[in-house]
Amino acid sequence: MVYEMLDRYNIRTDLALEEKERFESDHVEVPGVILEESYDMEQEIRITKVKIETENGAKIMCKPAGTYLTLEAPNMAVPDEDYHREISKKIATYLSKLIEDLELPCKQELSVLIVGLGNRQVTPDSLGPEVVDHLVVTRHIVKEYGKYAMGMESANQISALVPGVMGQTGMETVEIIKGVVDQIKPDLVIAVDALAARNTRRLHRTIQIADTGIHPGAGIGNRRGGLTKETIGVPVIGIGVPTVVDAATIVSDTMENLIHSMEESKLLKGVGEVLKTYNDAEKYELVKKMISPHLNGMFVTPKDVDEMIKQISFTLSEALNILFTNEVPA
Amino acid sequence: MVYEMLDRYNIRTDLALEEKERFESDHVEVPGVILEESYDMEQEIRITKVKIETENGAKIMCKPAGTYLTLEAPNMAVPDEDYHREISKKIATYLSKLIEDLELPCKQELSVLIVGLGNRQVTPDSLGPEVVDHLVVTRHIVKEYGKYAMGMESANQISALVPGVMGQTGMETVEIIKGVVDQIKPDLVIAVDALAARNTRRLHRTIQIADTGIHPGAGIGNRRGGLTKETIGVPVIGIGVPTVVDAATIVSDTMENLIHSMEESKLLKGVGEVLKTYNDAEKYELVKKMISPHLNGMFVTPKDVDEMIKQISFTLSEALNILFTNEVPA
Amino acid sequence: MVYEMLDRYNIRTDLALEEKERFESDHVEVPGVILEESYDMEQEIRITKVKIETENGAKIMCKPAGTYLTLEAPNMAVPDEDYHREISKKIATYLSKLIEDLELPCKQELSVLIVGLGNRQVTPDSLGPEVVDHLVVTRHIVKEYGKYAMGMESANQISALVPGVMGQTGMETVEIIKGVVDQIKPDLVIAVDALAARNTRRLHRTIQIADTGIHPGAGIGNRRGGLTKETIGVPVIGIGVPTVVDAATIVSDTMENLIHSMEESKLLKGVGEVLKTYNDAEKYELVKKMISPHLNGMFVTPKDVDEMIKQISFTLSEALNILFTNEVPA
Amino acid sequence: MVYEMLDRYNIRTDLALEEKERFESDHVEVPGVILEESYDMEQEIRITKVKIETENGAKIMCKPAGTYLTLEAPNMAVPDEDYHREISKKIATYLSKLIEDLELPCKQELSVLIVGLGNRQVTPDSLGPEVVDHLVVTRHIVKEYGKYAMGMESANQISALVPGVMGQTGMETVEIIKGVVDQIKPDLVIAVDALAARNTRRLHRTIQIADTGIHPGAGIGNRRGGLTKETIGVPVIGIGVPTVVDAATIVSDTMENLIHSMEESKLLKGVGEVLKTYNDAEKYELVKKMISPHLNGMFVTPKDVDEMIKQISFTLSEALNILFTNEVPA
Repeated sequence: MVYEMLDRYNIRTDLALEEKERFESDHVEVPGVILEESYDMEQEIRITKVKIETENGAKIMCKPAGTYLTLEAPNMAVPDEDYHREISKKIATYLSKLIEDLELPCKQELSVLIVGLGNRQVTPDSLGPEVVDHLVVTRHIVKEYGKYAMGMESANQISALVPGVMGQTGMETVEIIKGVVDQIKPDLVIAVDALAARNTRRLHRTIQIADTGIHPGAGIGNRRGGLTKETIGVPVIGIGVPTVVDAATIVSDTMENLIHSMEESKLLKGVGEVLKTYNDAEKYELVKKMISPHLNGMFVTPKDVDEMIKQISFTLSEALNILFTNEVPA
Repeated sequence: MVYEMLDRYNIRTDLALEEKERFESDHVEVPGVILEESYDMEQEIRITKVKIETENGAKIMCKPAGTYLTLEAPNMAVPDEDYHREISKKIATYLSKLIEDLELPCKQELSVLIVGLGNRQVTPDSLGPEVVDHLVVTRHIVKEYGKYAMGMESANQISALVPGVMGQTGMETVEIIKGVVDQIKPDLVIAVDALAARNTRRLHRTIQIADTGIHPGAGIGNRRGGLTKETIGVPVIGIGVPTVVDAATIVSDTMENLIHSMEESKLLKGVGEVLKTYNDAEKYELVKKMISPHLNGMFVTPKDVDEMIKQISFTLSEALNILFTNEVPA
Repeated sequence: MVYEMLDRYNIRTDLALEEKERFESDHVEVPGVILEESYDMEQEIRITKVKIETENGAKIMCKPAGTYLTLEAPNMAVPDEDYHREISKKIATYLSKLIEDLELPCKQELSVLIVGLGNRQVTPDSLGPEVVDHLVVTRHIVKEYGKYAMGMESANQISALVPGVMGQTGMETVEIIKGVVDQIKPDLVIAVDALAARNTRRLHRTIQIADTGIHPGAGIGNRRGGLTKETIGVPVIGIGVPTVVDAATIVSDTMENLIHSMEESKLLKGVGEVLKTYNDAEKYELVKKMISPHLNGMFVTPKDVDEMIKQISFTLSEALNILFTNEVPA
Repeated sequence: MVYEMLDRYNIRTDLALEEKERFESDHVEVPGVILEESYDMEQEIRITKVKIETENGAKIMCKPAGTYLTLEAPNMAVPDEDYHREISKKIATYLSKLIEDLELPCKQELSVLIVGLGNRQVTPDSLGPEVVDHLVVTRHIVKEYGKYAMGMESANQISALVPGVMGQTGMETVEIIKGVVDQIKPDLVIAVDALAARNTRRLHRTIQIADTGIHPGAGIGNRRGGLTKETIGVPVIGIGVPTVVDAATIVSDTMENLIHSMEESKLLKGVGEVLKTYNDAEKYELVKKMISPHLNGMFVTPKDVDEMIKQISFTLSEALNILFTNEVPA
C-alpha cells in the first residue's frame, strides 16, 4: 500500500532477493519465480537462489529472467582474514557452477574479461575499481609465454578493465566494453558493481551473483544501458554488493512500520483502512509531504564505508583469483 | 512529542541553530538565549547568531554558553570559484570579529595553531585534515627570518596540526593538542571539525563558527573530551560543517510528518491525541519498533560527499589564509 | 663515443629534441630533419619544432616521420596560477595548429577521444590519468541534448579514457583503444603520457606535442605497440611530459663529462684517443663496470614529483579544456 | 679521493653501515667503532651491528655513539607474505633485545609512543606515516578497560602519532613530539623514518635500527633537530629504511669507478696520480663540472617506489604489532 505509493518515487532495489521479499510480505506467490534457500552453519552464510523462469515473472520482478544467487554473511564486515578466505572460496565455488551452466563452447581454458564498474572517486561507488585493483591478470603472460609459463597452475586468460562512469568518459560504459570485447573476444565477461539495497541490514554483508549481467539500476552511478549478452555479444555474469540505501527508503519503511504498529496496537485500528479510501491525488500529496526534497540524492551508508569497501573488494578479488588462477576449491 | 520519545535515542545535532529551532517549533522562548538573524542578498547567505548567555540557557540548549555564528549558503555546493572566494572572505570577516571579541593580550601579530580534527580515512570525517592540507603555515618562516621575510604582508605565526582520532593514536585528541600547545604557546587555537546535523538540508552548505571550542558531539568520530580554554589553556574557536545526518533522524522526521499530516487531513484527526494517552512503556515500544537496529551507525550523506568535502575544505582553508596571511577583507 | 657504447644499454630519450641534440653535439647535420626554434620573451618559453621529413631521417632519429613541437618553460614548476593559464593557452594554440594541419574531414565540430596513458598507482607514470581526471567531457551531453545544450560555446564531442597499463589489464593498451575507437568513431585521438628524458634539466618543464602519436618508448611503463593512425585508424596526437630520467643516463653523462674535462685540463690529454683504441670487448667491459646492475629499473626524479605531476597535469587539462570547450585563444 | 672532493657536496648517508664501509674501502680502522656481522642462511638476511663506543668514533662516523643494527634482506622487495612475516618476527626479536639493553625502569608493561616521521604526500617520504596506519594501538583500551580487556595477550600501552613535516605544520617535529611526550609520559619512543642511502643496492631491502634516535640527516625531508633522549626526555629507538639515493651519489660512484677501471686497464695508469697533483681549486672545478646543477634536489628511486613503500611499511607495522601486542617470537 505505502509501497505502491512510493513506487512513484522509484525507491527500488538492485537485489532480486529483496524484490522477491516484497511480494512475500504480502503473502503473494509470484508465478514463474522459484526460490531456494540454504544455510551454511559453519560459516553462517545464508544462500538464496531466486530463479526467474518466465517473461511474466521477469515483468513482475522488474528483473530479467535468469538466476540470482545471494550470499548473506553477517560477519563479512568483521576484519578476520581466515573467515574472508572461506567466503572467497565459497563465492568461487558458486561462480564456478554458474559458469558451468552457461555451457560455454568446450575449451580447457577460459578467456575472461573482468570489468570493475563505478566511480573510483566516490567511495560507495568504488567497489568495482577496487576489486580490479587486486586481480591477478594473466592474459598477456599466457599470450606471450604460453600456458606452461611461470609455473602457473592454470592457463585461463584473465584480463581486466576499469571503464569509468559516463560523467568521466562521455561514453556509455556499454560502448567501451563492447569495443574492448570485440577486440579481445573473451568467452565471458564478469562485471562487478556497487548496488543499492532497500534494507540497511543488507549493506556490506550481501553478495549477489547473477547470470543475467548488469542492468540499469537503483545504484549510485546512474548506469544507463544494460551489460548483457544481447548488448555486448558474450555472456555476462554480474557480481554486486549493496553499499548504499536510498535515503527515501527509510521514510518508506518508517511509514510502513508506523501505520502497521498503530494498527496492531489496536488504538488506531483502521488507519490502513482510511488510507485505502484516499484517491490518487490524496495519496500522492501525502507521500510528497513525507519525502523531503532535501533527501534527493541522499544515501544511507555506514560510517565506516571506506573500510568496508576495502575489505569486501579484497574478498571478491580473492574469490576471482582462486577461481581463475588457482584450482577451484572443493 | 515524537521528539521527546526520540530523545531516548540520542538523535542530536552539533548545530546550536538547530537546537534553537527545536524549541521554536514548539513556540517556546528559551530564557538566556538570544537569536539574531541577517541576510546577505547579494551572495544569498543567511547568517544566524545564537548567543547563549546564561548557565540555564546552556543547560536547556545542551551547549556551553558562548556565541555561535551560522552561515547558510545554499550555493556553497556549486563549483563556482568566484563565489567560493566571496564566501571565504565573509568567513574571514566573521572570524576576525570573533577573535577581536576574545580580547587577546595586545599584540600586533598572532600565533595561531589550526587543528584539523577527524579521520582522514573516513570521507565524511576528513574535513578537518583536508582544510589543514591547504593552509599557508608561516610560523617556521617568521621564526627563522623575522616578520619582514619573503615580502609577507603579515607576520602572524600560523602553525597547523592533524592529530588523528583516538582509534588511530591511542590518545585523546585533547591530550595531543594540550601537549603541543604547551610547547608552542599559541595565542589561539582554531579547530576545524565535521559535524552531524539534524536536517539533511543543512549538509555541506552550513558553517558554524563558535567561540566556545569543540565539544563531545553528535558527530561521526566520537570525539571525547572537549577542546576548550579550560582544557588546553588558550581560547579555542571551533569551525564546523555538517557533513552527515544520523539515519535515525529521518525516522523521527517521517513519524513527525506522518502524524502531523494525518491530523491535518482531518481523516485521522486525533492520532496525536491517542499517542498522548500512551504510557511511557508503550511510547518506548513504539519508537523501538520504528528505529531498526540496522540503522545503528548509519549516516545519511549526499552521494557526492567526496566532491563536497573537497570544495568546502578549500573554501575554509582560503578563509583562514585570507585572514591570517593577507589583509582582512573589508 | 661513450654514447655509442652506452647505446648497447638502451639509454634512450622519448624527446625528439634530445635525439636531435645528440647529433648536434657531434656537429652532424641529420639529412631529412629540419629544426626551427623560437623564443617567447614574455613567458620565457622556448619552442622548438623538429620536423622529420624523410624515412632516412626517421631511421637516424629513431622516431617516425612527422612534426615534434617542444615547449620548454622553466617556470612551469612554480605554482603561479596566472602563469600556468598562459602556458595552457599557448599549448592550446599549438595544438590547434597541429590539428588544422591534419586536414580532418571538413566538419564544424570535432569528436575527440582523449586518452590518459600510464599507471595511476606509480606517481611519475600517473600524468596521463591525472590529466583525464580534470577534463571537461561533453560527448554524452551533446549527444543527448544537441549542440545548443547548456549554453555551451562549442559542440565538440569530447570523450576520455584511462585504459590502464598491461600489468593491470592483461591487454595491450592499443587493443583497448582500438576497440573503443571502433565503437565511438572519433575524428581524432589525443594521447597524454609521461616520458623519459635524457637530461634532468628537462624534467617537469618540457612538453612535447607530436602528430605522430605515441611510440614504444624509453618511458616508465614499457608501453608496447604504438598508438598511431596505422594501428587505430584515426589520427593520433601525442602529448608527453618527461617525468623521469633513467639512472643510467647520469652514469653516461658523468663519464662523458669526466673524460671531456680531463682532456680539456690538458693533464690527461689523449684519454679519448686511448679509449678509441679499445676493441669492442674492452669497451663493453668498461661500460659494464660503470653501470651497476643495481641501477636497473632505477629512475631519477625530483623529490617533489607528486606536486609537479599535480601541477602539470592541471596545466594540460586546462589547455585541452580551453581548446575544445571554450574558444581557442588568439 | 673523489669522495673527499665530493664531501663538499654533502653526499651523505643515513646508514651507519655505509659510513663504516666508506672507511673500509680505504682499509682504515676506525678507532672506537666495532663491527659485528652475521648471516641468516635460511631467510638470507645479513645482519650487521655497528657499535660506536667513543666520542672520537662518533666524530669520525658523523653519527652519535650507540648501537646501529642493519638487516639486509634482498628478498624484501618480493611480495611473499610468508617471507615478510618471517622478517617481521626477526625485526621484532632485534627490537626486543635493543629495548632490553635500554634498562628501562622495571615494569611488566611498557607504554610506547610510535612516531611516523615524514610527509604523507611525497611517496618516498611516506614510509613513517604508512607504518603508523597499520599499527594496533592499545593505550586507550588498556586505560579504559584495564589489562584484562578484550582477551588481549599483552597490556602494553601503544600509542601512535604522525606529526607531519615542518613545511606542513610550521613547527619542528621535535617540538610536537616533546609536547605529546610530556602529556603521555611513555617509557619509550620509537620513531620510523625514510632514509637516504649512498648505494642504490640498499634501497628497499635494508632496515636500520638504532638506539640513538633520529638525527638530522641526508634524507628527503630536511628534518631539523634530532629526536633523542636529550631533546624529548625518554629513550628513542630509530627505525629507518633507505628509500632514496641522492642523484649526486651516482656521479660520485661513476667517477670513482671510471678512474679506478682506467687505472686497472693499465692503459691509463696514473690517472689517480695526476688527480692527486690537482690543487684544491682545480679539484673543486672538476667536481663542479661533473655535478650538474640540475641534479640538485634530484633523487634516485626504483620505478615501483609506491609498491615498495606499501610492502615494507606493512612488514614494519607487523613487526611492531608482534612485539607489543602478541608475544615476542622466540
